[in-house]
Amino acid sequence: MAMDKYPSRQGDHKEIMDRKDPIVHGGADYDGPLEEKDLSFYDENGYIMLKNLFTADEVKLMKEELRKTMENNENRDAPDVIKEPNSNEVRSVFEIHKDSGFFEMLSKNERIVKAAQQILGSDVYMMQSRINFKPGFKGKEFYWHSDFETWHMEDGMPDMRALSCSIILTDNYEFNGPLMLIPGSQKWYVSCPGTTPEDNFKQSLKKQETGVPDNESMEWLTEQAGGQIDRATGPAGSVLFFDCNTMHGSAGNISPYPRSNVFFVFNSVENKLVEPFSGTEPRPEFLANREDTSAIKPQAGSLTEDVSSR
Amino acid sequence: MAMDKYPSRQGDHKEIMDRKDPIVHGGADYDGPLEEKDLSFYDENGYIMLKNLFTADEVKLMKEELRKTMENNENRDAPDVIKEPNSNEVRSVFEIHKDSGFFEMLSKNERIVKAAQQILGSDVYMMQSRINFKPGFKGKEFYWHSDFETWHMEDGMPDMRALSCSIILTDNYEFNGPLMLIPGSQKWYVSCPGTTPEDNFKQSLKKQETGVPDNESMEWLTEQAGGQIDRATGPAGSVLFFDCNTMHGSAGNISPYPRSNVFFVFNSVENKLVEPFSGTEPRPEFLANREDTSAIKPQAGSLTEDVSSR
Repeated sequence: MAMDKYPSRQGDHKEIMDRKDPIVHGGADYDGPLEEKDLSFYDENGYIMLKNLFTADEVKLMKEELRKTMENNENRDAPDVIKEPNSNEVRSVFEIHKDSGFFEMLSKNERIVKAAQQILGSDVYMMQSRINFKPGFKGKEFYWHSDFETWHMEDGMPDMRALSCSIILTDNYEFNGPLMLIPGSQKWYVSCPGTTPEDNFKQSLKKQETGVPDNESMEWLTEQAGGQIDRATGPAGSVLFFDCNTMHGSAGNISPYPRSNVFFVFNSVENKLVEPFSGTEPRPEFLANREDTSAIKPQAGSLTEDVSSR
Repeated sequence: MAMDKYPSRQGDHKEIMDRKDPIVHGGADYDGPLEEKDLSFYDENGYIMLKNLFTADEVKLMKEELRKTMENNENRDAPDVIKEPNSNEVRSVFEIHKDSGFFEMLSKNERIVKAAQQILGSDVYMMQSRINFKPGFKGKEFYWHSDFETWHMEDGMPDMRALSCSIILTDNYEFNGPLMLIPGSQKWYVSCPGTTPEDNFKQSLKKQETGVPDNESMEWLTEQAGGQIDRATGPAGSVLFFDCNTMHGSAGNISPYPRSNVFFVFNSVENKLVEPFSGTEPRPEFLANREDTSAIKPQAGSLTEDVSSR
């Protein structure tokens, strides 16, 4: 097994340790939508929101495609389709970048892929993809977590050289449960108490109970951010990029306004998955791609043009 | 039984009806802290936040007194003390305006009593009082409701001529589950589906399941507000006044920052409670005072001076 730079889940032990990898790995060598000031904001805070990276027409199209994909999956009972308990209502569909259609095209769009390359400093591949529909009135809370902690322990991601890209398809307000992020939290790794049960993912997709940071560490991380927690608010069409180790979570949504998004996880081709550091079996392919890890070739163009030419 | 201007809980029936009472009953005839523009904001929106109505020193004192009252009630097992399930941690203490001490003095302070008189257009009495401590990390969601709906159905409050006054003792941020209010919602009454079980209050203090507005009505109310939902954010020492019929709720609080407040419900002496309109037994005195409904005489002065002279 590779040396474990970021141990976690060691019984009662908890610890805040320094990050041992860069945050922005690339930079000026890579061409893309992020300017120098964007990269330095990302480096400092662990995320950046690019407002209106996609046009209103493109958002409209994405929402239609999202709705179609949800509907097509209503009667499919599979692990990569997450439904409401006791109903056929679809909440998330994974692996959408393999749909040989719209979402595959979107996953290669240069606006997002080139930004990922700029940050990760290499070619990138898709480690995970999904679409999410979070209903109004009853949208559930998601507690604080670092994605990297799970990806490292349960998927065997060696280094902090991956990011999430969330394309926001509905306006995110302060009052409909936007993603909350702790600025600067990516600079530390919270080694969480606990151990990893086998097949932990089956329940952690609903509510994470392993890899949960302790209260004291959360207080410390928030204090280093000057007591401020940021929210990913913005109009539909905005795109949030955030580091694999940025501490994030969201409150529930009791407002009438649902939220939906397209979610891509880009990993550096130089950071491919090895054996999980928790010693458990790797999670399924739909949560962490190991088979197809070839570099994505960024594709230029508008999504609406691409569709009409298909 | 008095004529029911605001029927609710009639089986499956749900309806949005016009408010039949004024929102601001008083106004210029009454002397107090609210200016003409404040009263017209309240009339239009159903609430107003007065920033820093109490000084930092007064807030400090209030927090100390709150902590003491909580501690004194840790080992008292009584209906007016609300604890965490399976623990002795106190979350709310009711009837604090009868403590013959600090909170009784606070409940008569002219800064708040005179504002209540200005809005309600008469002398006022205390219908309910409590202190609340909402912890960080695990603060629970409170779903949308109009207080008046419950006070009318379960306490027999005839008209919409009461208000809540929340003295904020900790900074309220966007990210620690602030109270959310639907501007303008006080202008309509949502007749809710359902019926009232006996002793409903025992569980409704934890999670309200009766008098819950339907989704369609909530969508309508939010649309009339231009799709905007306001949040009662502000520094400690601010005071929020809101109409008894303003639709409000709050998301959970996963941030490390707890929230605490002092909560007073002022009712007009011309709007005393009658038999509950649901036909059930009146709720206990600590939730809805019927015995002592004498007009409060506003007392001038600083809380810190009052204390040192005691």
